[in-house]
Amino acid sequence: MFSRILIANRGEIAVRIIRAAREMGIETVAVYSAADRDSRHVKLADRAICIGPAKASESYLNISRIIAAAEVANVDAIHPGYGFLAENAHFAEVCRSCNIEFIGPSVESMQTLGDKVQCKQLAIRSKVPTSPGSKGRIDDEDEAVKVAHEIGFPVIIKASAGGGGRGMRVAHNDMSLRSGLKAAMTEAEAAFGDGGVYVEKFIEKARHVEVQIIGDQHGNVVHLWERDCTMQRRKQKLIEEAPCPVLKEDERERLCKAATRLCKAANYYSAGTVEFLMDDKKNFYLMEVNTRVQVEHPVTEMITGVDIVRTQIRVAAGEKLPFTQKQIKRNGHAIEVRINAEDPDNGFRPSPGVLERYEPPGGLGVRLDSHCYTGYRVPPNYDSMIAKLIAHKPTRDEAIATLKRALAEFEISPIKTTISLHADLMRNGSFLKSDIDINFVERLLEQ
Amino acid sequence: MFSRILIANRGEIAVRIIRAAREMGIETVAVYSAADRDSRHVKLADRAICIGPAKASESYLNISRIIAAAEVANVDAIHPGYGFLAENAHFAEVCRSCNIEFIGPSVESMQTLGDKVQCKQLAIRSKVPTSPGSKGRIDDEDEAVKVAHEIGFPVIIKASAGGGGRGMRVAHNDMSLRSGLKAAMTEAEAAFGDGGVYVEKFIEKARHVEVQIIGDQHGNVVHLWERDCTMQRRKQKLIEEAPCPVLKEDERERLCKAATRLCKAANYYSAGTVEFLMDDKKNFYLMEVNTRVQVEHPVTEMITGVDIVRTQIRVAAGEKLPFTQKQIKRNGHAIEVRINAEDPDNGFRPSPGVLERYEPPGGLGVRLDSHCYTGYRVPPNYDSMIAKLIAHKPTRDEAIATLKRALAEFEISPIKTTISLHADLMRNGSFLKSDIDINFVERLLEQ
Repeated sequence: MFSRILIANRGEIAVRIIRAAREMGIETVAVYSAADRDSRHVKLADRAICIGPAKASESYLNISRIIAAAEVANVDAIHPGYGFLAENAHFAEVCRSCNIEFIGPSVESMQTLGDKVQCKQLAIRSKVPTSPGSKGRIDDEDEAVKVAHEIGFPVIIKASAGGGGRGMRVAHNDMSLRSGLKAAMTEAEAAFGDGGVYVEKFIEKARHVEVQIIGDQHGNVVHLWERDCTMQRRKQKLIEEAPCPVLKEDERERLCKAATRLCKAANYYSAGTVEFLMDDKKNFYLMEVNTRVQVEHPVTEMITGVDIVRTQIRVAAGEKLPFTQKQIKRNGHAIEVRINAEDPDNGFRPSPGVLERYEPPGGLGVRLDSHCYTGYRVPPNYDSMIAKLIAHKPTRDEAIATLKRALAEFEISPIKTTISLHADLMRNGSFLKSDIDINFVERLLEQ
Repeated sequence: MFSRILIANRGEIAVRIIRAAREMGIETVAVYSAADRDSRHVKLADRAICIGPAKASESYLNISRIIAAAEVANVDAIHPGYGFLAENAHFAEVCRSCNIEFIGPSVESMQTLGDKVQCKQLAIRSKVPTSPGSKGRIDDEDEAVKVAHEIGFPVIIKASAGGGGRGMRVAHNDMSLRSGLKAAMTEAEAAFGDGGVYVEKFIEKARHVEVQIIGDQHGNVVHLWERDCTMQRRKQKLIEEAPCPVLKEDERERLCKAATRLCKAANYYSAGTVEFLMDDKKNFYLMEVNTRVQVEHPVTEMITGVDIVRTQIRVAAGEKLPFTQKQIKRNGHAIEVRINAEDPDNGFRPSPGVLERYEPPGGLGVRLDSHCYTGYRVPPNYDSMIAKLIAHKPTRDEAIATLKRALAEFEISPIKTTISLHADLMRNGSFLKSDIDINFVERLLEQ
């Protein structure tokens, strides 16, 4: 096992990784930008190294500075968390070439699954349902129109290297398809340095359902069941839960087995997530694969009892998975809400600043993952998420009741947060019935 | 179901009860003494009523003031928590005579089980193992000596109405028995207004093992398995865990069935705990029955998934238990440490004062029950417990690893707490092997 690891991230996920490592008896090295000097991840780590100014490109995204910190601290491995360099195959390659293990999958898996066109082709070969669409990259307008006529409008144009909604366009007719194609290619080139796009059927009234995968370097791949992340705003997840409230047992099995098949075909190891869109007839279609731990991994941990970050570290060190598929049971229902330093009454404007009061909730069924504390200054430089509040109870109704009371207890001031939005959502009839799609929140907020 | 309840308690257990009630949609009324004006239980309740000065006899122990508050707030029921009036049968009687439900067992059960001599006689009739000893109360020195010679020294003299170690004396020979008898009777008279004592065999190298019971008013009594509370200092529990690490499955079954038998014989309902001493051959002997929720109930909640306080409220309202014995499974291992505002390096002197820093731990496997927050002033007037930190993980070793890291994260200053003591205990070889008895901590501290 590793004796020392570096965490190439910040905020709550850095704290999460430090906790897992500490429980395993592994020393931790935090890195931080000048803006994060007072973050809890810096205080909790055994050692912390400042790697640059606030600007991410000069700190958390700067490969050479992170590698230099890793060399100075003489670590055995680097955990990239999520975001920043977590899905950067080049970074993984550099780490390993420096004889520092990258706690994640192989470079080849990252490349194959990270390219949406390659990923989709592998899915088709693995009999994993995908949206009908172009065979691969498409750069000819006329060809795009031909494909659209075959599969029927509406269609969606997606960036091959994409993610986070960038380089995406929905087209309802020939004209919007032609103009959207050019715009998407330009946007993709700018965002990812790769202008490749493809076209597929656009799924209307979709739910977002995803499967947590974990594999080892000995060919074992196991799923940890699914999560439902339909509650989103502008493609950013707000609330995630496990299990998906609308799936029947046979539907769940089919979904999870498809995801496992795809990851086996990619010789996948470490934690990964296979994301699907599900239409209103519960047909599901591959969206993308995230080759890293996800923000919403705690809901899966709560219902399965598997420590996902610990397992990532173990398999990165060459250990076999400590469980088989059959041993993964589900227990109860878990829901996570993302608490962001944003003002929901003011267009979700970021609301950084000092947490003069910070009184987190606790008690039965409550888990809190956060890097905050009373007196902490939320910097304006990064993602606005300041805490993840997770409830785990025997039933979904009880988990919602626990979240409601925990949200009511959670006092943060004077900055604005999304606590009030979540408190409203917990009382929303459509959420209570889980009668929602991925555009539900936007429609609600427009009212 | 009740629409409004009053919590006749303070501190973390008041917060615990408010949380359960809120999740059930029940309004809560807190009562508080002048010393507790800023406690979190006051802030969290829907309404809070000051019932008197700091002195408990004029506030939390004052039946007429609590009933007056209940009448003013027009509540349907009162939850007494633990301590204060929780085991006062007279209080339960007064509540019910005012048409306010007492969230606890019947007055008759409280009286029978609360009197140690009556409780022991019921245990003998129910074939629950008890220590050999006097048939009932004993007030004649010669008779006590005769009993001691029959059962063999050492013997223990206990107050019939007793609890918390008061009115107890261990005797190793005739002389110490004769002098101890008089002293115990005087002490019992002073402490409980009842000088009755009895004599039984003293169990050496004992472990403390107890069984959580929950029953309804329809004759259903179910056990929620056992807890091990061997780690004590001066008869005050420090660390509690579930399940008991040294019991085999058949031993566990026998223990839990015996406890259930006793409670059924007492027509018990609500939550209760049957406490046993267990000798080094794993023979167990009834110690006493606590007719209330206990401080350490969370470890049982974690491994069974049963919300004990919620269940108390439901059965008090006349509902049937929502589960059968067969449905109560165990899942993983849970350990609770009691964090007290005391200085372990200075004879455990109370250390009240303002929590200038209060940074609780969080993350996977961590539960925290507390009424504290940054800026809160721990008053000097009551029990020194300020937080209960509970770890729940698949195995005992993992739960200990989680507690170690959570204790390391927990920052409280400038007051002194028992966090450092617990951090030491988590590394103690005897604790790790659970090779301990109820005097282990005292021996350790004497070194």
